[in-house]
Amino acid sequence: MRVLGVDPGLTRCGVGVVEGDLGRRLAMVDVTVVRSDSKTPTPERLLALDLALTELVGRHRPDAIAVERVFADVNVLSVMGTAQASAVAMLVAARHGIPVYLHTPTEVKAAVTGSGRAEKAQVTAMVTRLLRLPTAPTPADAADALALAICHLWRGAATNRIEQAAATVRAQQAAALAGRTGR
Amino acid sequence: MRVLGVDPGLTRCGVGVVEGDLGRRLAMVDVTVVRSDSKTPTPERLLALDLALTELVGRHRPDAIAVERVFADVNVLSVMGTAQASAVAMLVAARHGIPVYLHTPTEVKAAVTGSGRAEKAQVTAMVTRLLRLPTAPTPADAADALALAICHLWRGAATNRIEQAAATVRAQQAAALAGRTGR
Repeated sequence: MRVLGVDPGLTRCGVGVVEGDLGRRLAMVDVTVVRSDSKTPTPERLLALDLALTELVGRHRPDAIAVERVFADVNVLSVMGTAQASAVAMLVAARHGIPVYLHTPTEVKAAVTGSGRAEKAQVTAMVTRLLRLPTAPTPADAADALALAICHLWRGAATNRIEQAAATVRAQQAAALAGRTGR
Repeated sequence: MRVLGVDPGLTRCGVGVVEGDLGRRLAMVDVTVVRSDSKTPTPERLLALDLALTELVGRHRPDAIAVERVFADVNVLSVMGTAQASAVAMLVAARHGIPVYLHTPTEVKAAVTGSGRAEKAQVTAMVTRLLRLPTAPTPADAADALALAICHLWRGAATNRIEQAAATVRAQQAAALAGRTGR
């Protein structure tokens, strides 16, 4: 199974492609960082990211795309660029018919280091070791994208399917409740 | 000049197309709301919005696209969908080489009602009157998209260009300052 991980961002968007299966050795296929200048208008930056991700997805043909789940409360100023970049990543995936899975930073850290509260340096060190890389991937966005792909391979698509089913049931229950209370 | 206004949202994305010039009569060309089901996975919703906006832009060939500026602090839960939908709108504009302008809700309200603190009903009433519509556009997202287009026509592209130039200078000054202080 081949997973393309995306650490979304407008200034730096990390992309890491990893091959592997549960219990098998992992292999890095590619790692890169798509950059855009903050002085460039946002629409052009989004288009450049769209084109770059489309090229990467077309070249590597991943079975799944893992994107970091964006939270609105982390940093109000930077969250917009992150949300916009993750929207582009999801759009490119949908256009290619490739399933998208979102993982939280805590899930990613726990998957690769065993602790959801691990520091960035520890994540980078584990990614370097797990993929048997001669040098640590830089910048942190590159290492994070690889960690996302590894997290997805290890958590397995099955877990995600269960989570998605549970989320659908929760959404249906919430909708039914909202209907009953007339909200 | 023809402006396509977008009130971004994943569940309901308002789109209004208005023709006019400063000091001339306004005319509504089209108004619609692109909807998607909250139970559908986000990547598919983004793709459906992309396709719908691409069709509308291709059909109406606007000179400019006006999108509501999204703020991260309004509602943490709904802001992600809004940010993602606005990213799709900007992306479609960039793909067609059409300039995008962002207007805040306050600017839009002030442009059509004279008060930046006007209520939704007042905005809808003024949009209906300004465009001489037989009935008020519903839902609010449709009226808001038309209000955005009107706001852009009235504020004029010149104002926006001045603002963009000022923003660029501010960004350059901030970057220079960050460089000096070693941040």
